[in-house]
Amino acid sequence: MNKLKNDLFLRACRKEKTERTPIWIMRQAGRYLPEYRAVRAKADFLTMCKTPELAAEVTLQPIDIIKTDAAIIFSDILVIPEAMGMHLEMHEGRGPVFPSPIRTKQDADNLKILDPTVDLKYVLDAVSLTKKELDNRVPLIGFSGSPWTLLTYMVEGSGSKNFANVKKMIYNNPELAHSILDKIADAAADYLSAKIEAGANAVQIFDTWGGILSQSDFLEFSLSYIEKIISKIKRTDEPVIVFAKGVHHNLDKLKSCGADVLGLDWTMDIGEMRKQVGDKVALQGNMDPTVLYSSPDSIRNKVKDVLASYGEGTGHIFNLGHGILPDVPPENAKALVEAVKEESIKYHK
Amino acid sequence: MNKLKNDLFLRACRKEKTERTPIWIMRQAGRYLPEYRAVRAKADFLTMCKTPELAAEVTLQPIDIIKTDAAIIFSDILVIPEAMGMHLEMHEGRGPVFPSPIRTKQDADNLKILDPTVDLKYVLDAVSLTKKELDNRVPLIGFSGSPWTLLTYMVEGSGSKNFANVKKMIYNNPELAHSILDKIADAAADYLSAKIEAGANAVQIFDTWGGILSQSDFLEFSLSYIEKIISKIKRTDEPVIVFAKGVHHNLDKLKSCGADVLGLDWTMDIGEMRKQVGDKVALQGNMDPTVLYSSPDSIRNKVKDVLASYGEGTGHIFNLGHGILPDVPPENAKALVEAVKEESIKYHK
Repeated sequence: MNKLKNDLFLRACRKEKTERTPIWIMRQAGRYLPEYRAVRAKADFLTMCKTPELAAEVTLQPIDIIKTDAAIIFSDILVIPEAMGMHLEMHEGRGPVFPSPIRTKQDADNLKILDPTVDLKYVLDAVSLTKKELDNRVPLIGFSGSPWTLLTYMVEGSGSKNFANVKKMIYNNPELAHSILDKIADAAADYLSAKIEAGANAVQIFDTWGGILSQSDFLEFSLSYIEKIISKIKRTDEPVIVFAKGVHHNLDKLKSCGADVLGLDWTMDIGEMRKQVGDKVALQGNMDPTVLYSSPDSIRNKVKDVLASYGEGTGHIFNLGHGILPDVPPENAKALVEAVKEESIKYHK
Repeated sequence: MNKLKNDLFLRACRKEKTERTPIWIMRQAGRYLPEYRAVRAKADFLTMCKTPELAAEVTLQPIDIIKTDAAIIFSDILVIPEAMGMHLEMHEGRGPVFPSPIRTKQDADNLKILDPTVDLKYVLDAVSLTKKELDNRVPLIGFSGSPWTLLTYMVEGSGSKNFANVKKMIYNNPELAHSILDKIADAAADYLSAKIEAGANAVQIFDTWGGILSQSDFLEFSLSYIEKIISKIKRTDEPVIVFAKGVHHNLDKLKSCGADVLGLDWTMDIGEMRKQVGDKVALQGNMDPTVLYSSPDSIRNKVKDVLASYGEGTGHIFNLGHGILPDVPPENAKALVEAVKEESIKYHK
């Protein structure tokens, strides 16, 4: 295996010494970049996901333009349910839609067992191609949605305000919810293992909707399946990052879920969280994404706040507390990366 | 002053002994009730707010039908910005819209200083009329939005996903944001004082959007103005409830903001929170509103969980962790109230 030229991200995930704090940005391959929009103008979103050359092209853009310390493969969390047999449509403005959502045991039984090397070969090809084109400049991250987050989309069928259908399922038919979650967890574990096999240096599990659950429901319907995935992933030393949005509570349980790194949203105090998790895991985050609407000076000040809150030593991967917003000026994303690279040195003497 | 026949709610707010845990439900005068929809079929939402007879009628419905232990005056948090001079439209399905949102100092300067006895006389009349019709059966709650929550609507102009405009304002022009927040805080304090003068037995401040802020921004742009309101409200012994959704963090600061009661959303563990706040304040909440989609048996089990989590003794007002959802069957709301009334007795020996 070839040696990475910049392995700051991986070292920080493992809490090894680094010269400065590494940074990447959730959704860094995205609409805020004119170069991304140029590719997107030629192909729809799903075609981009399914065409390794296009996926690799946009994955590399932020490395070249914004100069982050890690790449994350361009894809979507909903490729798993699609590969399990659900018809997926992407509607401009409205977001993803499953016209036939899962509501009954019959619907659930129709979900097929995933073989990622066949059903999601296009993602694995994109990973291999990206690795080649990255030429070991920075590590490549693979990702999956958490079973709970995927279940919400699969049951609701489209964006939801109150998540009425998936909540009805967990309260009225918890056995059905558990059987689907278990199936998704197996699929996600196999998928992430295959991504690592194809060359991913780390994987992140996104639990975007864990925060709509009460604490005990979060443990039962979300965290237990994240734990199952982590225990099943085939890996050597590739770190696992868990980003559970809106889950301040249960940090105590999260820190023991098997993840090497916990992603924090911007409403948490990273310094407080560091005290709570101790040496157990590294932390990723957590600047408010809307700070990028402000000026480079103001961005630098907020960067300083986050760095100071985390404090000295390794184990911090800088990131936003959620994905970068599509109407952020690219110069501001560059200003963020520069500020982190410059301001973090003094915390790593 | 006449004596209330059922003052359980007020005694619990003051942490005085009660025979059982009182319950009311946020948005209890709302669309889930066919009786409410019958009134709404005759008048649009703002007309209902502005017609004391209609506002009183729907305010009383849940007392008669669901049998909660407190009434909350039917109104909307956006009556304050409307009375400050902003044109407000209610769009079916899309929610409230201010066609001319506040973006500049000029816009802000145009906001007028509120005299609630003139500009919001219709609410005060609704309070007086409701008090009369309630005939001291249960206490009446008045309410206001928090300055931060009102600012988000006033600046965004309509529903928002990322709150880009109000975030731009606090990052790029914090002085402007502070000057408007200060003006709103004065208006809200005068408004709540006038509601108490008109007969409200308690007031609640809703900070629906405090949770979109980082911890330090929450303190600076939201909590400080809630504190200002509480310090300015003219009251004798009427309790103040603060419901800040999604603000797990800063509970330590919240408990000292001057509120008698803190409302909790459903993602918090009420037992843990009780340990954290100690004897300082009473707690209100916090069952997941979507539990009302399930069966009466399942609702009763979740009620037992919340009661057991809070534990023995007074200082708990049962409620949902957010407003009741419009598609909940009224029988399930009744089942909730019955379950709380029956299951809570053993915690008050």
